[in-house]
Amino acid sequence: MTSFLITGSSRGLGLELVKHLASFPAATIGTIFATARAASPSVDLTQVIKTTNGRVKYVQLDVNDQSSISAAASKVDQLLGPSEGLDVLVNNAGIQLHNDPAPSLMKEDTLDSTLSTNVTGVHRVTSTFLPLLTRGKAKKIVNITSTLGSIGLAKQSGVIYCPSYSISKAALNMLTVQYASELGPKGFTVFAISPGWLQTDLGGSHAHLKPIDGARSVTNIILKSSKAKDNGCFRDIYIEGDSFYTGENPPW
Amino acid sequence: MTSFLITGSSRGLGLELVKHLASFPAATIGTIFATARAASPSVDLTQVIKTTNGRVKYVQLDVNDQSSISAAASKVDQLLGPSEGLDVLVNNAGIQLHNDPAPSLMKEDTLDSTLSTNVTGVHRVTSTFLPLLTRGKAKKIVNITSTLGSIGLAKQSGVIYCPSYSISKAALNMLTVQYASELGPKGFTVFAISPGWLQTDLGGSHAHLKPIDGARSVTNIILKSSKAKDNGCFRDIYIEGDSFYTGENPPW
Repeated sequence: MTSFLITGSSRGLGLELVKHLASFPAATIGTIFATARAASPSVDLTQVIKTTNGRVKYVQLDVNDQSSISAAASKVDQLLGPSEGLDVLVNNAGIQLHNDPAPSLMKEDTLDSTLSTNVTGVHRVTSTFLPLLTRGKAKKIVNITSTLGSIGLAKQSGVIYCPSYSISKAALNMLTVQYASELGPKGFTVFAISPGWLQTDLGGSHAHLKPIDGARSVTNIILKSSKAKDNGCFRDIYIEGDSFYTGENPPW
Repeated sequence: MTSFLITGSSRGLGLELVKHLASFPAATIGTIFATARAASPSVDLTQVIKTTNGRVKYVQLDVNDQSSISAAASKVDQLLGPSEGLDVLVNNAGIQLHNDPAPSLMKEDTLDSTLSTNVTGVHRVTSTFLPLLTRGKAKKIVNITSTLGSIGLAKQSGVIYCPSYSISKAALNMLTVQYASELGPKGFTVFAISPGWLQTDLGGSHAHLKPIDGARSVTNIILKSSKAKDNGCFRDIYIEGDSFYTGENPPW
C-alpha cells in the first residue's frame, strides 16, 4: 500500500494522476494526498474526492509559500499517523507563462517567477516533506520535467518555445540530480519524468496526447522505478506504437 | 580591432580578463569596457586602467539592477560613437554562496538569488546590450559557466558542491542555447565557457589554476571561436599538458 502526494492537482496532469492512482485497488495505492494552491479543491477534484471513499485527501499547498508547505506537511503527518510515512512525492505543480516569444524578449519577472515556482518551489516542497518521506517505505521523489528542459535536444533542434519554461526545467533537472546524489545513499529514488505534450491548460489544445495518457505512463514509470535503474535519471514516457514517445531517456 | 565588455571585472577572472585583453596590441583588441557593481573601479582595476592609455574604460553596471544596466548601455553607446558597435560581451559576473552544504539544506533565498544573479542577470545584460552588439562586427556573446553546471558530469560523479551554483549554471547553459538559437541566424556566436577552477575569491585558494591561466585560455577560445563551430556550445579550457583541462566540450 503506497501513499502518494501530488502537487498542482486542481487540473491538468496533476488531476489526472490523482484520478488514475485512485483507480488502482486500495491494497496497491493507499492514501493519495491531492494538493493545490486554493483553499478548497477545484470542481473536478471535488468530483474525484467524492467517488473515492476517502482515499483522496485534499491538502492546501502553495509551492511559493513556505508557511503553507509547512502547514501541509503537518496536516499530512497527522493524517498518516505516527507509524506511517509518505511513500511517493510527485512535484507536479509548475507554471509556463506564454509571454516570452524569444529569449531576448523575456520579461525579467517571467523568468524570475518561472524559476522560483518550477525550481525553488520543488526544493521547498521536497525539503519540507523529507522527514515524512524518510519515514515512508518507497522513498520516491518524482519531479515532473519536460523534454523542453533538455539542453541537448534544444541545441539539436534550434527550436525556441517558451524559453523561461525551458530554462526552469533544465535547472529542475540539475536540482533532481543534486537531490539524487544526496538521497540515493539514504535509500531514495529521486528522478525526473517528462510526461509528454498533453492537452491541458499548460500544454494547449494542439498537444499530442490526452492528459490521461500522460498520467497512465507517468504512473507506470513510477511504479516500476527502482533506485538502481532510475535514481538521478531523466525519464520520458512510453506510448505503444508511437515513434515519438519511445520511453528512451532524453539527453540532459 | 575588437571591442569587449566584461561584467564583474573588479576582481577574479573578470579583472584578469581585462588585464590580459589590454596586453594585446591596440590594433587587435580595441576598447575594453570593464564593468562592475561599484560606483568606481576597485583598487586593482584602477591600477590596470592607469597603465593602459585609456583603452580600459570603467562603466558602473549591476547585473541585478535594470536601470544601472540601461545607463551602462547608454554610456557605452556614447563612448563608442554612432559608427561603432560592441563586438564581444563577456557575461562574467556571478555569485557562488557557500551556505548550502546539501541540496535539501539550501536556503530558499540562496537558490532564488543565485538564479536571479547568474541567470536572469545574464539575460538582463544581454538583452539590453543586444542593439549595440548588433551594430558590432564580431557579434559574440560569451557566458562564463562552470563544469559544475554540467548535469551529465554531476550525475556521473555524484559529487555535491554548491548545489545552488550548479543549478544556476545548468540554467545558464540552457539560456545560452536559447539565445544561440535566436541569434545564430542573425550572425551571432553565443556560447558558454567554463574557465576552470581558479584561485579567486569565488574559487578559493585550493583551486587548480591561477586566474591568469583561466583568463588566457578563455581569451584564446573567444578569439578563435566561430559561429559554425561554437554557436550554442559548452566549451572548456585547454591547459597544455594538463589531463583535466583537455579542451573537450563537457556534456550538458
